[in-house]
Formats: sequence, C-alpha cells, structure tokens
Amino acid sequence: MKKGYFITFEGAEGSGKSTQIRNAVAFLKKQGYSVLMLREPGGTRISEAIRSILLNKELTEMADVTELLLYLAARAQIVREKILPALKKGKVVICDRFEDSTWAYQGFGRKIPIPAIEQASRLVRGNLKPDLTFVLDVDTTQGLKRGGRHDRIEREALSFHRRVRQGFLTLAKKNPNRMVVLDTGKPLEWVTQKVRERLERVFGK
Amino acid sequence: MKKGYFITFEGAEGSGKSTQIRNAVAFLKKQGYSVLMLREPGGTRISEAIRSILLNKELTEMADVTELLLYLAARAQIVREKILPALKKGKVVICDRFEDSTWAYQGFGRKIPIPAIEQASRLVRGNLKPDLTFVLDVDTTQGLKRGGRHDRIEREALSFHRRVRQGFLTLAKKNPNRMVVLDTGKPLEWVTQKVRERLERVFGK
Repeated sequence: MKKGYFITFEGAEGSGKSTQIRNAVAFLKKQGYSVLMLREPGGTRISEAIRSILLNKELTEMADVTELLLYLAARAQIVREKILPALKKGKVVICDRFEDSTWAYQGFGRKIPIPAIEQASRLVRGNLKPDLTFVLDVDTTQGLKRGGRHDRIEREALSFHRRVRQGFLTLAKKNPNRMVVLDTGKPLEWVTQKVRERLERVFGK
Repeated sequence: MKKGYFITFEGAEGSGKSTQIRNAVAFLKKQGYSVLMLREPGGTRISEAIRSILLNKELTEMADVTELLLYLAARAQIVREKILPALKKGKVVICDRFEDSTWAYQGFGRKIPIPAIEQASRLVRGNLKPDLTFVLDVDTTQGLKRGGRHDRIEREALSFHRRVRQGFLTLAKKNPNRMVVLDTGKPLEWVTQKVRERLERVFGK
C-alpha cells in the first residue's frame, strides 16, 4: 500500500538537526521529489496546542506519564492527519523527531518501562516506521551550550540529557539498517556530506 | 497504605451529576469528613490546559487515539498531583468522572479496542480504583436536551451518545459492588435520597 518514503532526524538539542533537514529537503526537491517537512511535537493545530503544554517551562510539576501521553497524543494526530496521507500520495516525509525521541527521552531519560511505552506506541503509529533515521550525535554539554536551555525539557538536569544521548546511541546499535549515527563534533561539511551520500544511495538517479 | 476513600460520579451530560456531587460533599462535610472535590478532565493546571484542547468544538479533526491519550494524560496528572496525595492524607475524594468515562466514551463510544485502553490505563492509574461509583443514568435524548450540546464531545452524533449510555450500564453490570446505577428519570428527591442512603451505609455514624 505504502508508496512514499519516511525519513526522520533525531538527536539532542543543539545537534544541528534543522540545518541538515533544510539541506536534505533542498536536495530531494532538486531531485524532483515531492517533500513534506514536519516537526514533532507539532505539525497539526492539535499537536501544536499539545506542544505548547509540553514545552511550557512553567509547568515543572508535569508527571512523567503525563509527558509521555502528551507526546504520544501529538504523534497520533500528526500520523493520521499528515504523515500517512502524504506517504499514501507517494511523498517523501521528513520529520524532525519521531518515535526514537520517545524511547530516548521518556524511556532512557525518564526511565519509564519499555514495555509500557511499546504498548502505547503501537496504538499511536500502528505499523508505521521510518525508512531511514539520521541520529545527529552531539556531546551533551556542547549541545546544550549551542541549543540553549529555553523550554521545560531543555532545562532538565545534565544527567537526564546524558541518558537521552546514550538512549539514541543504544537505539542506533539495535537498528543499524535504519539508523545512521553522525558525529556532529566533526566539521559541518563532513556531516552534510554524509547525509547527502546516504540520500543519494536511496534517491540518486 | 491507602487511608482515604475515593468516590466517582459518572453519567452522560445532563444526568444531574453536579447537583448530586454538591449534595454528597455537603453531607460528608456535615459528617466531619475532609472532602476534596475534583472534576475530569481537569483539576490541575496541566489537566485544565488539556481539557481546553479536548472540549474545543473547533477541533473536529481530532483522531480517536489522540482523544484517548489526551484524556489519559489529564488523568495521569490529576492522579499524581491531587488524588493520591489526598487519599494518603485520609481525605474523601469525590471526582466528577474518572476511568469509567474512558471505557464508556472512548471504548463503547469510539470503539477503541478494550485491551489497548486497559494497557494504557494501567500506566495512568496504577492500582487506584474508585471505592464507590454512582452512575446517573439518563435517557440519551433527554440528557442532551437538558445538558445542551456545547463542546466537541456533546456535539457527537446521537448514536455515539447511545453507545456511551449502554457502556455505563454494561460496566455497572460487571461491577455491581462498586457501581450504583440510579435512574434520573425518577424525581430528583428520589435520586438524592438513594445517593444519601448509600453514603450513610459507608460514612454514617
């Protein structure tokens, strides 16, 4: 049934996701593909409303399970309203964060048990999985310095952000075919080139 | 560990929950109990923010799974922030709607599979269950006429609201010790008296 292609970019704050996503979109459009660029949490008016609760730095009393369910609710909406319809039309969907962030932040970061996340996640995305995921790995201190600590999640303790980083690396080891880890400590041109090479392998003419 | 007592009121819009809750609170306070009155979704600033998304009548595009997860997120917060701490202090907690509404509205009404709701719900409430639940049963047409059709849920089709009503009655049959069904087609004084009698059995001196 599915004809499109689903690419996600994952990584901590300050890892340079936005820059790489812009490059990837430009490359794919130049190759003639119809591309839909999205971000999580967000991308629909309901998901953006949920995002504004999730990232509100005042709401420090938020329970971990509440946080998990809000991220999943935002995802349930964008999957049905945007991602699945676009893939059905054969588009390339590029999303800034997706389910790997839930594993990394709420699983590894918040230590919510994996089976609980898995069961709820299945309800949210059904059989949908990214075809390709770039993990932009960044040294935790460096990333927070670059990205800033503005929202509720960014303001978490350093130890939390370290667990998140390890989470992404662990996930990548378990999914070597889908996930490509790129060390953003290397020069920007190197990272850009690596993303480009991988995209050319899939989309090049 | 638990020392308090947890009472919920369930039923469709226009079933007269608010009146009965006010009466119950007044009765229990008169008996000398410390009572906390709450409503779902809501009761904390995070849950109220979620409520405003859930009931916004403009957001008709909301997916069923999104709706389920938002109700559960609001509940996860009120359970941890309000209900459990109050019960621990020995208070009587009276809540306008709780998990039975999820079964009735998202299970029976939206037809989301029961096991999926059960798994996610367990994450939300742990072992917490109401000690006593009043189901105020009302004829669907009558209830909607009385309650009005203002918010996103109230504006659902009549067939949806009929399934919700059947949902509450089915749940009550399965949980005869916990759930008391009261026919609100009878005079208000009769309903009030029945609630009072049941409360006296638990709390009377």
